[in-house]
Amino acid sequence: MEDGIAALPEPPYYAVIFTSLRHETRDGDGYEETAQRMFELAAEQPGCLGIETAREGVGITVGYFVDESAIRSWKEHAEHVTAQERGRAEWYDHYAVRVAKVERAYEFRRGARRAAG
Amino acid sequence: MEDGIAALPEPPYYAVIFTSLRHETRDGDGYEETAQRMFELAAEQPGCLGIETAREGVGITVGYFVDESAIRSWKEHAEHVTAQERGRAEWYDHYAVRVAKVERAYEFRRGARRAAG
Repeated sequence: MEDGIAALPEPPYYAVIFTSLRHETRDGDGYEETAQRMFELAAEQPGCLGIETAREGVGITVGYFVDESAIRSWKEHAEHVTAQERGRAEWYDHYAVRVAKVERAYEFRRGARRAAG
Repeated sequence: MEDGIAALPEPPYYAVIFTSLRHETRDGDGYEETAQRMFELAAEQPGCLGIETAREGVGITVGYFVDESAIRSWKEHAEHVTAQERGRAEWYDHYAVRVAKVERAYEFRRGARRAAG
């Protein structure tokens, strides 16, 4: 994860794909701090395998979890629930969450043999 | 997809999560043109349901497909194969591809009732 790409075990595991569009970009609305905090907090959750994020107009964050139970626990985490509520009330115009089971994966690294997957 | 978030049917369907780190950012290396072309070409493929992309240091592109066969056809598309080869030779230091089956999804839109999923 050091370079922004999660280092994950062999599949299967779960991915939560969170794609979002901000309501408006405004300093001081608490969004950046909360987004950063949620990124760090998610990464610390039991069963979280890694997390990747990028925003360029649309934001895409993918969290990887060992199973559905770990996803549910994170969704119900008190601080995360508060952030979700503020997200709907203040920050987002539109978002979509897709929960998916990763069945296979492969990787390329410059100068390395291609990792299995 | 008008706002960058793919409008998708009810699950199940497949997601291909492509997370990448550029080798270096350099104008005139053909990356931006090819990335844009691949985005448009992927969206046109039979069985492609939508595509989302953002780059902010790391790039995350998620393509949604009806099934594994549609994913394979896109992976083997001649122009895409050439782009993949240039990606490994010139553009990327590191990338990961995760192929996942979307099992459930939900959405929020400001001012709308929450869509089913």
